[in-house]
Amino acid sequence: MKIALLGCGNVGTEVVRLLHEQSSDLAARIGEPLELAGVAVRRPDKDRGDLPVPRELFTADAQALVSRADVDIVVELVGGIEPARTWITTAMAGGKSVVTGNKALLAEDGATLHDAAATAGVDLYYEASVAAAIPLLRPLRESLHGDRITKVMGIVNGTTNFILSRMTETGATFAEALDEAGDLGYAEADPTADIEGFDAAAKAAILAGLAFHTRVSAADVYREGITEVSASDVASAAQMGCVVKLLCIATRAGDDVTVRVHPAMIPTSHPLAGVNGAYNAVFVEAEAAGRLMFYGAGAGGAPTASAVLGDLVAVARNRRNGARTASESTYADLAVRPMGDVTTRYHISLDVDDQAGVLAAAAQVFADHDVSIQTVRQDGRDDDALLVVVTHQATDAALAATVEELAKLPAVRQVASVMRVEGG
Amino acid sequence: MKIALLGCGNVGTEVVRLLHEQSSDLAARIGEPLELAGVAVRRPDKDRGDLPVPRELFTADAQALVSRADVDIVVELVGGIEPARTWITTAMAGGKSVVTGNKALLAEDGATLHDAAATAGVDLYYEASVAAAIPLLRPLRESLHGDRITKVMGIVNGTTNFILSRMTETGATFAEALDEAGDLGYAEADPTADIEGFDAAAKAAILAGLAFHTRVSAADVYREGITEVSASDVASAAQMGCVVKLLCIATRAGDDVTVRVHPAMIPTSHPLAGVNGAYNAVFVEAEAAGRLMFYGAGAGGAPTASAVLGDLVAVARNRRNGARTASESTYADLAVRPMGDVTTRYHISLDVDDQAGVLAAAAQVFADHDVSIQTVRQDGRDDDALLVVVTHQATDAALAATVEELAKLPAVRQVASVMRVEGG
Repeated sequence: MKIALLGCGNVGTEVVRLLHEQSSDLAARIGEPLELAGVAVRRPDKDRGDLPVPRELFTADAQALVSRADVDIVVELVGGIEPARTWITTAMAGGKSVVTGNKALLAEDGATLHDAAATAGVDLYYEASVAAAIPLLRPLRESLHGDRITKVMGIVNGTTNFILSRMTETGATFAEALDEAGDLGYAEADPTADIEGFDAAAKAAILAGLAFHTRVSAADVYREGITEVSASDVASAAQMGCVVKLLCIATRAGDDVTVRVHPAMIPTSHPLAGVNGAYNAVFVEAEAAGRLMFYGAGAGGAPTASAVLGDLVAVARNRRNGARTASESTYADLAVRPMGDVTTRYHISLDVDDQAGVLAAAAQVFADHDVSIQTVRQDGRDDDALLVVVTHQATDAALAATVEELAKLPAVRQVASVMRVEGG
Repeated sequence: MKIALLGCGNVGTEVVRLLHEQSSDLAARIGEPLELAGVAVRRPDKDRGDLPVPRELFTADAQALVSRADVDIVVELVGGIEPARTWITTAMAGGKSVVTGNKALLAEDGATLHDAAATAGVDLYYEASVAAAIPLLRPLRESLHGDRITKVMGIVNGTTNFILSRMTETGATFAEALDEAGDLGYAEADPTADIEGFDAAAKAAILAGLAFHTRVSAADVYREGITEVSASDVASAAQMGCVVKLLCIATRAGDDVTVRVHPAMIPTSHPLAGVNGAYNAVFVEAEAAGRLMFYGAGAGGAPTASAVLGDLVAVARNRRNGARTASESTYADLAVRPMGDVTTRYHISLDVDDQAGVLAAAAQVFADHDVSIQTVRQDGRDDDALLVVVTHQATDAALAATVEELAKLPAVRQVASVMRVEGG
């Protein structure tokens, strides 16, 4: 069984190492050995230390490698949209199965890849694209075969989770925690994709598509990052027994789907609340199975390589058995609803004048929008007061309109913060 | 594809319901419909309400049903050792694949079943035997194919987790929390199998066997239940930022394996600490994947049926493709080490005379056994003092010997409690 590897960076190096170290175990599980046919890299002549790969296997011509007749499986670890998409579709058109960790491509244009796999009758596996080593996509598409998933809620970005964890643990500001993440190698030089939620949104699209057997692209995902999360938001969360997390949330009700990424407060008793640092976790609710959660390292060469190897074994076994996993090519055509239709809860902090009647006026605004209040706390300060309101479930549109009108009340000096509350 | 169902209680009823409701989805995923060939029950004539099964499919003769030539897959949900073992081995000898949730049989005599499956060239799947709907066994045996698991640590018994959660939340005694569990249907009339750890030990044996590809039976598992856990143990745990959980822990180092079930303190920051009520969770450490956790409902008809259906689809697909999952028939022959060789930490509370020199004498006992102390706290009370010691890692044998000798010190009135500390 011959493997073509595209890319030999952090993850690819670990894949090569595992293929080498576990070769006899892998051969026993598949029924025949896995053999590296070639490794496409930008600089084939680069010194790669003691990597157990003969020099002559390296090539700069990925397109030629994926077209070779003797290659059975292509492992794509280059990332990005092009030329990865061309290489993958070329490989599949030539009858090769594909294992990839390319979340950007899957989220932007997964339909093209799935259709190409279905047309060619080959496997497309991508466990490594979401939450690295956490066995997540396989359970979603195999273990829950006879069940119906209604909700997926997860922490799928390690950088932002590290930042929010530090803010919670130390009271640091966002800027301080971001600096620390950069110093420790958890944030990239340009952290935009992480802190603005783009990375999480791509993963949310992949998860929602798999969970609900429908097509969701990154453009369908409502997205807010964590740059506006303040130390006082984190402190307010703690005061009500919550922590702040950047969540990706996808729900299904009937033929309607919602998919969103935003910071939210969740109770410390919720299993996701204990997911700290660079770890990832995804919570799944299914009709029969109930609530499930999957937790693990969300990034890193070795964890991601572990996921790639798991896929590689499955794909290789399928090829040997003449089988494939075809379920992703059958789609329901579910509508993705806009954010305004999502039901959620809000935690709202208002700086208000410390005088009688403020609460009554604020409460009337909530009532006018049919938003039911769960708790109110009013704390007098030097010359003003802090009014903190937590609502019951309402549509995001109603909640947003409520906040807009609250800001116009004469006694409201400032809307200090607004954050969604989940997992109650 | 014809299915014989053995047992139609809580879980079997849900399996029938899901087979019926999801029949077109299942047929699409497998490539052909799943059809019930018969249901073996003790009382075939019993009124089963609106269960969507024709009367004539019920039979009291399970042995005849599993011997029928037209049956492809047997789903065993009867439990217990015999006659379940005979039915399963008969089915496999006749070329049928088997899906079972029978943890007692797998833990007591899994080797017989695995050997029978290997000899007959059929599948044996048992996701439902551990932690109900949590997709756990499939990731262990498929997703982590190219990796090496070093540790499995889990909460796998819902009854004891409910009891310990209530003790933590309300300060209740063990007896009070057990009563409450009984009232709410979380504890059986005879709760021995749960509270003495037998159920968790059976699951520990199954998990260790799968994780390390070796043979472990329930008799190999060191076992302590939770009947001795006191309200003051729970309070002490809280004081040091911990909660008390009944853990199953299996480790592998080289060719040595340890498998144990006992109550232990774990830090509230540990992901398992947030697993409350009747929920289950299992923590897995693998060389490449790092730390993973799987969480979900540990019992219940619908969750368990969801796991059975997932297995059923996998087995049916394998049959249709002429494939099977054979990896469990290849075993490493690893030695299971005795509890004394396990390294762990202890939390020890001593009632001591409130006088100078007590701490020095106690510290000397620890030193004599090469047990390093992490923290000591001494609180004076009316006429005595409470000395609380938390150790660093040491062998269980050294820790036990230390405690035995501490109890003999003149100034020690009583060893108030001893509990292992994990997850640090």
